[in-house]
Amino acid sequence: MRNDPELTAELTRVAHLLADAARAAILPYFRSANLGTDNKLPEGYDPVTEADRAGEAAMRAILDEQRPQDGILGEELGTKVGTTGLTWVLDPIDGTRGFVSGTPTWGVLIAVGDEAGPFIGIVDQPYIAERFIGSPEGATLIRAEKLQPLQTRKPRPLSEAIVFTTFPEVGSPEEGAAFHAVAKNALLTRYGMDCYAYALVASGQIDLVIEACLQPYDIQGPLALIEAAGGVVTDWDGGPAHQGGRVIAAANSDIHAEALEILRKETQR
Amino acid sequence: MRNDPELTAELTRVAHLLADAARAAILPYFRSANLGTDNKLPEGYDPVTEADRAGEAAMRAILDEQRPQDGILGEELGTKVGTTGLTWVLDPIDGTRGFVSGTPTWGVLIAVGDEAGPFIGIVDQPYIAERFIGSPEGATLIRAEKLQPLQTRKPRPLSEAIVFTTFPEVGSPEEGAAFHAVAKNALLTRYGMDCYAYALVASGQIDLVIEACLQPYDIQGPLALIEAAGGVVTDWDGGPAHQGGRVIAAANSDIHAEALEILRKETQR
Repeated sequence: MRNDPELTAELTRVAHLLADAARAAILPYFRSANLGTDNKLPEGYDPVTEADRAGEAAMRAILDEQRPQDGILGEELGTKVGTTGLTWVLDPIDGTRGFVSGTPTWGVLIAVGDEAGPFIGIVDQPYIAERFIGSPEGATLIRAEKLQPLQTRKPRPLSEAIVFTTFPEVGSPEEGAAFHAVAKNALLTRYGMDCYAYALVASGQIDLVIEACLQPYDIQGPLALIEAAGGVVTDWDGGPAHQGGRVIAAANSDIHAEALEILRKETQR
Repeated sequence: MRNDPELTAELTRVAHLLADAARAAILPYFRSANLGTDNKLPEGYDPVTEADRAGEAAMRAILDEQRPQDGILGEELGTKVGTTGLTWVLDPIDGTRGFVSGTPTWGVLIAVGDEAGPFIGIVDQPYIAERFIGSPEGATLIRAEKLQPLQTRKPRPLSEAIVFTTFPEVGSPEEGAAFHAVAKNALLTRYGMDCYAYALVASGQIDLVIEACLQPYDIQGPLALIEAAGGVVTDWDGGPAHQGGRVIAAANSDIHAEALEILRKETQR
């Protein structure tokens, strides 16, 4: 299905409708004093806002109307089985901790794909009004009605590379150690950008994002975006990443191979 | 001088001119493929861009014209002694590591003050086009020609507070341990936002920013902004922070006192 230009155009049109609707639903809550947060998990802190639910409901309403036979996997409102072989994967607010802190680096993640994984992906930042979109037609940043083609960085050694992850601890102690084994050989390591870091890979600004404990809806939008921009996204064993877990997103296959070798060595100890 | 409304108005006018000029000078370099970085320090990575120098030069040209008798302390282009008792403190790009990574959370920092410290401060984010300004007249966010008054958060216990710092290691191992002693008692800890975290304190989004190893130009703009919005900024001993070093920026005196007690205990071991 990913090789059908007409279908790609139709799905891209719908993906933009979803992103527009999520923006409109979520943005009024951002930096609002009435932000309603509660704990999703009994232990730990995982705020889920009204905005999250409103964003996903707005997107699902459009899918019900425009693509009623497609499947849906949403972070907040669950799974809908479809009949077309296509599934939409939705994360209305990736980076809820950043969202409740007022940072402008959370995002709306949208993907659509088949059993082989997503082939259209959006990372949308409503406050900055940046939309990063990737599809078989290529990758583009849309802002203020301007379109800018996106391409990942050319190969450079890890010692000259910029590496991102969201939390310094990354995942388990073993996963954290593996991340830091890569990071200590990099030029620069930064934290705290949530899904925005994947948009920076697609934009040719940074070389690597390495994360663990991801859900499918955390990675499918970024994955399709980065692949469309020329990058490589796999799990830490070099296999498919669209089911989440341990993920490495790389600007090109050279830096992917260099980082993957370190991750493998560390996790096979 | 800080109690003279006419002088405040005049200095505020000039501060806006500086921020406008820095935006125009720096923004063309942001996410540009031709970003010229070099190493300021022989060891470690501290990129200084042409943008940094262009931004400061643009601001100094305006000061030479508008306020030729005032002193200047700039990150890039040094110190100019003045005769008025007023000094402008300029950091054209705070968060150069974030800047070269393409993140939108670096900022232009501008302050003006007397020997007691700064009383007008700006944190400007040119890409998002957000300008956070504080003065004896109050604190305001200006974006897209809309003005929004800013106020820091009301008191809440540390266990419900949001804490930011830029690097997980913070400073020395002792300083890092003191930061993490505060952070482990907070609701939520986030990294990587550079000066943008101070703007979030002023905006009432977060409760604390704790940093070490700051230079005067890193903190004077944020300090005047946060004080104007109702917050408290001191060093880790509760003394003046405008010379930099170890800094705690708090939304209010309650959370300031709670965090300061932990920092003191940890650093006096």
